[in-house]
Amino acid sequence: MVSQDALVVFTPSGRRGRFAVGTSVLQAARSLGVDIDSVCGGRGLCGRCQVVLTEGEFAKHGVHSCASNLSGHSENEHAWEKTHGTLSDGRRLSCSTTVLGDVVIDVPADSQVHRQIVRKRAEVRDIELDPAVRLYYVEVQQPDMHLPSSDLRRLKEALDFDWRLTNLQADVRVMQELQSALRKGDWKVTVAVIDGERIIAVWPGLREKVYGMAVDVGSTTIAAHLCDMQTGEVVASAGRMNPQIRFGEDLMSRVSYVMMKPGGDHEMTHEVRVALNGLAAELAAEAGIGVTEILEATFVGNPIMHHLLFGINPVELGGAPFALATDEAVTGLWATEIELHIHPNARIYALPCIAGHVGADTAGAILSETPYLTDAMTLIVDVGTNAEIVLGNRKRLLAASSPTGPAFEGAQISCGQRAAPGAIERVRIDPATLEPRFKVIGCELWSDEPGFADATAATGITGVCGSGIIEVMAEMYLAGVIDQDGVIDGALAARSQRVQANGRTFAYTLFESEARTLQITQNDVRAIQLAKAALYAGIRLLMDKLGVAHVERISLAGAFGSHIDVKYAMVLGLIPDCPLEHVASVGNSAGTGARIALLNRSRREEIEGVVRRVDKIETAVEPSFQQYFVDAMAIPHKCDPFPNLRAVVELPAAAASERAAAGGRSRRGRRERPLTEGAGT
Amino acid sequence: MVSQDALVVFTPSGRRGRFAVGTSVLQAARSLGVDIDSVCGGRGLCGRCQVVLTEGEFAKHGVHSCASNLSGHSENEHAWEKTHGTLSDGRRLSCSTTVLGDVVIDVPADSQVHRQIVRKRAEVRDIELDPAVRLYYVEVQQPDMHLPSSDLRRLKEALDFDWRLTNLQADVRVMQELQSALRKGDWKVTVAVIDGERIIAVWPGLREKVYGMAVDVGSTTIAAHLCDMQTGEVVASAGRMNPQIRFGEDLMSRVSYVMMKPGGDHEMTHEVRVALNGLAAELAAEAGIGVTEILEATFVGNPIMHHLLFGINPVELGGAPFALATDEAVTGLWATEIELHIHPNARIYALPCIAGHVGADTAGAILSETPYLTDAMTLIVDVGTNAEIVLGNRKRLLAASSPTGPAFEGAQISCGQRAAPGAIERVRIDPATLEPRFKVIGCELWSDEPGFADATAATGITGVCGSGIIEVMAEMYLAGVIDQDGVIDGALAARSQRVQANGRTFAYTLFESEARTLQITQNDVRAIQLAKAALYAGIRLLMDKLGVAHVERISLAGAFGSHIDVKYAMVLGLIPDCPLEHVASVGNSAGTGARIALLNRSRREEIEGVVRRVDKIETAVEPSFQQYFVDAMAIPHKCDPFPNLRAVVELPAAAASERAAAGGRSRRGRRERPLTEGAGT
Repeated sequence: MVSQDALVVFTPSGRRGRFAVGTSVLQAARSLGVDIDSVCGGRGLCGRCQVVLTEGEFAKHGVHSCASNLSGHSENEHAWEKTHGTLSDGRRLSCSTTVLGDVVIDVPADSQVHRQIVRKRAEVRDIELDPAVRLYYVEVQQPDMHLPSSDLRRLKEALDFDWRLTNLQADVRVMQELQSALRKGDWKVTVAVIDGERIIAVWPGLREKVYGMAVDVGSTTIAAHLCDMQTGEVVASAGRMNPQIRFGEDLMSRVSYVMMKPGGDHEMTHEVRVALNGLAAELAAEAGIGVTEILEATFVGNPIMHHLLFGINPVELGGAPFALATDEAVTGLWATEIELHIHPNARIYALPCIAGHVGADTAGAILSETPYLTDAMTLIVDVGTNAEIVLGNRKRLLAASSPTGPAFEGAQISCGQRAAPGAIERVRIDPATLEPRFKVIGCELWSDEPGFADATAATGITGVCGSGIIEVMAEMYLAGVIDQDGVIDGALAARSQRVQANGRTFAYTLFESEARTLQITQNDVRAIQLAKAALYAGIRLLMDKLGVAHVERISLAGAFGSHIDVKYAMVLGLIPDCPLEHVASVGNSAGTGARIALLNRSRREEIEGVVRRVDKIETAVEPSFQQYFVDAMAIPHKCDPFPNLRAVVELPAAAASERAAAGGRSRRGRRERPLTEGAGT
Repeated sequence: MVSQDALVVFTPSGRRGRFAVGTSVLQAARSLGVDIDSVCGGRGLCGRCQVVLTEGEFAKHGVHSCASNLSGHSENEHAWEKTHGTLSDGRRLSCSTTVLGDVVIDVPADSQVHRQIVRKRAEVRDIELDPAVRLYYVEVQQPDMHLPSSDLRRLKEALDFDWRLTNLQADVRVMQELQSALRKGDWKVTVAVIDGERIIAVWPGLREKVYGMAVDVGSTTIAAHLCDMQTGEVVASAGRMNPQIRFGEDLMSRVSYVMMKPGGDHEMTHEVRVALNGLAAELAAEAGIGVTEILEATFVGNPIMHHLLFGINPVELGGAPFALATDEAVTGLWATEIELHIHPNARIYALPCIAGHVGADTAGAILSETPYLTDAMTLIVDVGTNAEIVLGNRKRLLAASSPTGPAFEGAQISCGQRAAPGAIERVRIDPATLEPRFKVIGCELWSDEPGFADATAATGITGVCGSGIIEVMAEMYLAGVIDQDGVIDGALAARSQRVQANGRTFAYTLFESEARTLQITQNDVRAIQLAKAALYAGIRLLMDKLGVAHVERISLAGAFGSHIDVKYAMVLGLIPDCPLEHVASVGNSAGTGARIALLNRSRREEIEGVVRRVDKIETAVEPSFQQYFVDAMAIPHKCDPFPNLRAVVELPAAAASERAAAGGRSRRGRRERPLTEGAGT
C-alpha cells in the first residue's frame, strides 16, 4: 500500500517535510518557510512561483524523485501558458501542482522573493531583493447592505487573510481610486504596499510589474537607473547634465548664486526637478512602460544637491560651520512633494547626508562598498570637484571632504576637456625619446598604430580628459620630464622638441596638428599637484585620526575614478600606497548605493545606522592639514615611501631635487591658502 | 533653626511633597506630576504657568502658608509684566518663584495643560483639553564645525532634553523653514508637534498661540469654529451655504449630477474646498489672526459630503449596496491635500463614517452625546434632509438613516421656508376659537401683542420655518383641526373662517395679509406625516433590534433639532415617548464632535473605537419597516400609547377616526413607496 503522505525536499534551501498527498507544492514550501515568490497568492495567475522537479535517486534524503510523483499539467498551467507562453525547461507552477509522492523540488533564483542580485565585483556583497514596495493580488468580498463595511475595510480583510498583512494604513489618494478599481476588476485587484505598512496604489485585476528608480543627483550629471522591483534587474539607464550648471559650474558658485539672488534656490530646485521628470520619462520610454508604473524613487547626492532637490535653501552649506538642515534619511515622502511625476502616489527615499561637505552620495558609496563589514582598513575616494574620503573598517569609520578643485575634471588645465570622443584618455611616454603615444575616446587604436589618423579624423583630437591628464603627468614623471617637485626639466629641451620654453617655465607637447597644440604646461602640473595634494592630505589626516600607517583596500569611485588607471593615480600620489590588486575602480558607487536602497529596504536601516556612527572630520580646520598638504605636493610624496608601488613600478630617484623642492614648497605654501580656506564644496 | 526643606501642597490635585528651599514652584509641581502648562519650558517667557498662593493655616496638611514662604517678585516676572501687563490677583509665574517655606499653591484651571472646557449642558461630559498639536519653545545648540550635526538633529536634542520628546519625525516642509527660523530666532524657536510624534511647524522665538478649526460640512450649510488650542476657547464661528447646492439641493440630486456628468465630482469637490478656504479666511479675520496660524482642522460630514471633501467619487453611495470607500478616520493628512490653505503644513483629521447613510456627522454626534458611556437607553436623532438615528447605551449602539425627505426643512410645504427673519417659528391655536397666534423670527413679540405689526413691518411675515411647521400641525391636532390620521376636519369650516375648502380637501389659514396667505393644506399635513412616519419607523426598528420598548433619553440634534420645541415634536410623533425633561435640543452635536476631536486627541481614538462597535441597520430593507411606517402615519401614533406625553399634554381621543384611518392607510401605503425605496440619502 502506498503511504498517504510524501516527502518533499526543497533545494537549494535543503528544507524538507512530509505532506499529505494532494498538497500543492507552494503550500508545502510555505509551511516549511521556503522562499517562493507569488503575487497572485497561489491562484495560478502570476507565474512567479515556478519550480523544477529534480529527478533521480537521492540516497542522502532517501528519496526517489520522479515526474509521476507530481500531478500532471493542471488547467491553471494550461491557462497560464496560453497568455504567457509555454513553461520552459520542465518548469511547473508550484501553486497549481500537487504532490503525489516523494520529490526533490528546486526553486530557481528567479522564483525566490529574496533572490540575490549578483554584482560584477566579487569583493562586494550581492543585493538581496527585498524592495519596500511589493505587489499583492487579492479577491475582495463584495459589499453587503446588511453587513455594511467600507470597500477599504474589505480590501484590508482580504490582504490580512491572504497575505497576513495586518494594520495596514491607506493613503487618501488610494481611497480616491479604490472603488472604481474594485468594480473595474470585478472585485479582483492588485495593491502596492510599502514597508508592509501602507497601501499606496491599487489597480484592477492582476498586475505583475512595478518599477523603481534610483537616482544620483550629481553637480554635473544626474544619473538614473530604472529597476524592475520584482526581479531587481536594471531595465533602463539614463543620464543628463544637471541643468543647474547654468547657475554655476561648481557647487560654490551655485551657493553664491543663491546668496546673491533671492529666490535663486527655488529656481535651481525647479530646474533639477524638471530634469528628473525628463529622466523618468526617458527611462520609462526606454523600458516601454508608463511613468506611472514607477512606484518609488531613491536618491543620493551631495549635501547641496540634496538640499536643493528637497527645496531646502543650501545657503548654510556655503560657509562655516556648514550646517546641514537635516542629516536624516528622507523616508516615505510623496514624490509629488518634489514635483516628480511618476505614479501619483509614489514615494521618495533619500539616503542621509553625513556632514556639511559629505553627502548622501558618500552614504551611497559606503552602502555599496560596505567598509563597515570588513576588518580591512578600507579607503573610499570619490573624486569630483570635491573629493569625498571615507576611511575605516568595521570598528570605526571616518569621513571627510577635501577641496581638490576641478583640476581632475580637466578644468584649470590648458588642454583639459570633459571625457568625450576626441579626448586623449591614455598616454605612454618613451623615457629614451620622450615621444608620447596615446589613445583617444572613441577609438580603440593607439596613436602609433596604423589607421589611427583615419579612425580619429571624424572626432579630431581635441583635448585631454581627466584620466589622460593623470596618465600624461605620471608618465612625464616616470620619464624624467618632471621631477619629484613637479618642475619640468628645461634641460631636456636640448634633447627633444617635445620640451619647449614657455615664458619663464617649460611645457611638454603631447600632440600637435594644424588645428591645435596640446601642451602640458608648468601651470597645468601645478594645478594637478595642488588638487592631488589636497586629496592626499585629507586621506593622510584621516589615517592619522585612525592611527594607521597604511590602508589595505582602496575603492576609487565616481565618473573620474572609474576611468582612471589606478597605477598612475598612485604614481602621481593621489592615493596612498596599497597593494595594487586591492585598488579598484568602482564606478558610480553612490548611484549603486541608491539602487541597493531601492531594492532592499533593510539596507536602508543599515546605512542609516552606519552613517550615524561615522565620525566627520573637517579637514580644513585641522592644524596638521597644511603640513600634510605641503608634503603631498611632491610626486608621489615627499616622505611616504610607497613600497607596494615601487614593487611594480620603478620610480625615479628623488634625491637630486631635494633643495629645489624646499624652495618651491614655501612659495606654493602661499598659493595653496585660497584653496584650503575656501568654502570647500 | 529653619528646616532646609519645605512642604508644598498643590490644589486642586492635593498632591504634596517636600522640596529643598530654593526649588521653583514649577519644578516642584512637575516632580509631583501636577498638571501645569508651559510653552517656554520654565524660562519666564510664556506666562502660562501661573499659580496662586493660598494663604492661611491648613491644619489638615500641617501647613502655615504665607506670602513670605515664597520668593519675592523675580526679574523674570517684572520682565513678563512689562510685555504682558501686571499679574492679576496675586498670581505668580511658578517657573520664576521659589519655595522658601511651607506653602499651599493653587493651580487655576487656565494654567492646567489638561484643563476642562465646560459645556453648557450638564448632562454631557466636559472636554479635557489635550490637543493633537502642541507648542514647545526650545533653545537650540549652535552648529559646531568640529562636531558636525544637522540643525534638525540639534533641534531634536533640545526637544528631547527640555520636553522629553523622543524619536520625533519631521516633515520635509519643516526642514525647508528650519534653518532660517533658527537663525532669525537667534537659536530660540517654537515648534509645533503633532501627536507627540512629528514636528510640523517651526517659528523663530517664542510663539504662544496656535489655532485649530472644527468643521461640519453639511449638505446645506458648512459651519466652522476656530479654537484657541491653548485655552480650548472658541474664538470665532462662521457658517456659509454649501456651494454644492447649485448642483442639487439634496444629496441624491448631487450624486445624480455626478452620475450624469463625468467630472462632476471634481467640480463639487472643488466648490466645497473653495468654500472652506473662504470660511478659514473669515474665521481668521474675525479672530484677528492669519490663516497660517491654523495648524489643524477637523471635519465631520455625511458620507457624501465626506467623500466629496476628500476627492472620492460618491457615486457608490447613490445606490445599493451603498458602499463607503472608507469607514476609517482620516488622520494626519496634509491640509494641502484637500487644497485647504491654512498653515502650509497643517493637518487634517476627519471622524470616521459609519455606513453608507450614516456619516462622520453621526460619529460626531455620538462623540458629543456619549451614549456609549451611559446605562440610559439613549436616542440621538439628527433631523435634516435625512434623519440619522442612533440608539443604545454602553452595552450596544445601533445606527441608521431614515429617508425623511426635506419636509421638516420647509420644502414640500406650501408655506414652508428656511429659518430666516420673517418666518413663523412658534404657533398657538385656541381650541375654542381656532384662532392662531404666532411668533416670527426676528421679533420677540407674539402676534397678538401690541406693537407686533410695527415690529414685523420690515421683514414681513413670509412663511413658516421647520419648527413653526411642527408647532402649527401639533397645535392643529391638539385643537382638533386635524384628527389622528391627519385629516383636516372640513366640518369646522362652519365654525371658523380659518378652515376652508381647498379643492376636495380642506386647509387651515395661519396668516393672511394683502401680500400673502399662509395656509396649511391637506398635502402639507401629508408631507409632514410621511416624513415623521419615516423617522419614527426607523427609530422603532432600532428599538426592536435592541429589544427595548421605550427610550430613556433623547437628544434632538441638527439645526432643526435645536429650534424645535421637543414637546410638539413628541405630540406629532416624530420621536417616541420619553419623559420630557430627558428630551434635549442639543444643537449641532456633529459640529461639537468635530470640536471635541480638535481639542482632545484621545477622544479621537475613543470615537474610532466606538464607531467600530456600532451596528448599522439599513432600515429600507428591513421587512418590518413598512408596517412601522404605516402605523407611524397616525398622530402621534396608531398604537404606541405615549404615557409620558399624556402626563403633560391632553391629547384628543383617537377612537372616532379609527375606521377612516384604516381606509386612509392603504391609500397612503401606495404613496409611501417611492420614499422608502428611494436611494435614501
